[in-house]
Amino acid sequence: MKIDGKHYRTIWIHPQNPKIVQIIDQRKLPFQFVIKDLEDLESAEKAISDMLVRGAGLIGATAGYGMYLAALNVNKKHFIKELLNAGEILKNSRPTAVNLQWAVERQLAEIEKCETYEECVNATLKTAGEITDEDANMCRMIGEHGFKIIEKISRHRNGETVNILTHCNAGWLAFVDYGSATSPIYKAHDAGIDVHVWVDETRPRNQGARLTAWELLEHGVPHTVIPDNAGGHLMQHGLVDIVITGADRVTKTGDAANKIGTYLKALAAMDNNVPFYIALPSSTFDWAIADGVNEIPVEQRDGREVKYMSGFKDGAEQEFLIMPEGSNVANYGFDVTPSRLITGLITERGICDASEDGIKTIFPEKYIM
Amino acid sequence: MKIDGKHYRTIWIHPQNPKIVQIIDQRKLPFQFVIKDLEDLESAEKAISDMLVRGAGLIGATAGYGMYLAALNVNKKHFIKELLNAGEILKNSRPTAVNLQWAVERQLAEIEKCETYEECVNATLKTAGEITDEDANMCRMIGEHGFKIIEKISRHRNGETVNILTHCNAGWLAFVDYGSATSPIYKAHDAGIDVHVWVDETRPRNQGARLTAWELLEHGVPHTVIPDNAGGHLMQHGLVDIVITGADRVTKTGDAANKIGTYLKALAAMDNNVPFYIALPSSTFDWAIADGVNEIPVEQRDGREVKYMSGFKDGAEQEFLIMPEGSNVANYGFDVTPSRLITGLITERGICDASEDGIKTIFPEKYIM
Repeated sequence: MKIDGKHYRTIWIHPQNPKIVQIIDQRKLPFQFVIKDLEDLESAEKAISDMLVRGAGLIGATAGYGMYLAALNVNKKHFIKELLNAGEILKNSRPTAVNLQWAVERQLAEIEKCETYEECVNATLKTAGEITDEDANMCRMIGEHGFKIIEKISRHRNGETVNILTHCNAGWLAFVDYGSATSPIYKAHDAGIDVHVWVDETRPRNQGARLTAWELLEHGVPHTVIPDNAGGHLMQHGLVDIVITGADRVTKTGDAANKIGTYLKALAAMDNNVPFYIALPSSTFDWAIADGVNEIPVEQRDGREVKYMSGFKDGAEQEFLIMPEGSNVANYGFDVTPSRLITGLITERGICDASEDGIKTIFPEKYIM
Repeated sequence: MKIDGKHYRTIWIHPQNPKIVQIIDQRKLPFQFVIKDLEDLESAEKAISDMLVRGAGLIGATAGYGMYLAALNVNKKHFIKELLNAGEILKNSRPTAVNLQWAVERQLAEIEKCETYEECVNATLKTAGEITDEDANMCRMIGEHGFKIIEKISRHRNGETVNILTHCNAGWLAFVDYGSATSPIYKAHDAGIDVHVWVDETRPRNQGARLTAWELLEHGVPHTVIPDNAGGHLMQHGLVDIVITGADRVTKTGDAANKIGTYLKALAAMDNNVPFYIALPSSTFDWAIADGVNEIPVEQRDGREVKYMSGFKDGAEQEFLIMPEGSNVANYGFDVTPSRLITGLITERGICDASEDGIKTIFPEKYIM
């Protein structure tokens, strides 16, 4: 999508030097826009572990390019052995990221087919490019399908502004391009539909206020940042036409784990007859789980994220205490929205009901015993 | 309640000098505990308008003492005329505060009965004391009634911890003592019942993280501060036994306007069969309104409260930017929880259903045509 009028992806080959991969240091957003060069395995590993890049799709793409950068720098005599080792290092950079494991395995499968070192360098470059393009295409398709929902609402409103609420950042910054929840929004905006996005701040890490707001601002999509507390009031007063969020994990029955607070918005949407959609690439489904609320373990994160807050002052980002030092805090990473509250799932294959029967209609192969 | 082991109210006469009234400068909490002397009308007016004191009960008490301080300093020859003028000044210090108008009118009614200046000084001191004691007593009674609910839950749990979730600050800092939502909690804690409070941070002004957490910490009540997003997840997993919040305004049908985000917690409580109570002194009822969602106007506050955040660093409180400067923000002050989501109302007269029939049982005189 666009930054200051220029098109970007979140990861790309340096235009003058094919041995360098470039990313945006997302930790510095929205206060500073810094492009970072990745030149070897180590810098790719650090980009993932230090969270310069985040989001399933982008982590997978970075791991893919990490294997290419590793291939450029290994001892040519033992390249397979060294690349197996590089794969382990990358896989451990964020152990819970499923796309990371998957991208590394895909590269290793290609590497094992190679007979010469030169073949291997070419294969890892090609495969990294494929992983990246596939992610962008998948998000583009989510946008194509989700667009139809927004277009229909716009027609029903006789072209008046369609108000869309989103939570956290399921934007292009979390993928290679377009995003999941944001992809239908960008598509609608670019097609001339009058859209406006309510951006949940998304405490405690503020991914909405920091990343989603920045994305939308740079691409020129009208939006308003709101405290997470505000969505219910907006829905009571007819100011939200549709909610679209991403997901961290969706069960085969349609329960959706997503950033903490999503469940509260789904309840408010149900109470006010506002359609509530989850947008996700199919890699987000967990085909082994049926009961999201009881079976998906919820990560508890460092309490420091609640007790301190990061902000910009005097030209630098700083951390501030925002409550009594002596009080306890709890920091649950996400919650699970039961499928009964979800109007539909928007995937790259199309839209379906958030139910086993619904998902089966577009992913029949996953339900064969 | 207690601060560092010593008992305090939020407003009191200076122990060595009856011509000085003392308050806590609540703007500096929780980072600094500063007691401020009020010596005249002007300092009382500023304490209210600059929000050193806040909360309906405490604003009323401060206005009461403001009239006493004014009486100490007026021209004795025209004291009634000057005190009428002082009343106008106080009433305008926060025009929307109902308790403020009421306290000033009550003082003026007493002043009009006085024949001498000395009588007038004594009457304003006595009346200010009465306003203050009545507020404390009302909150104490809310605690007595609400205590029974907590005690019952504790018995059902065989004495295991009772987990109470609250939103914003309806604590003793907002009144003269005890608070509304917190009063049953303090009473239960002091009676030896094992209670633990989940404190909603309460964005954007963070009254939960700043004030409620500080109150509970100083009084020694176990508590945990959570982002506003977390409550639904906690309720899904049986970690909340009861929700108690305060209210800004409750209709005669039991709809409750309270800090933005309260409605979302009420929805989650209903979805998980968690009892949801509103604690309020009877002065919070608006007997003229029947439909809270459609008839109570919701204040929109300065967007700066969303875009910037206040925190503590290097020994001082500072304000810092937390999102893109160029993005729009919206800042709705409160939302309305429909009575169908409220288990009951805890008032100084007792507990009733959140419905016209329920409220009528304890306030029958309000429904006489």
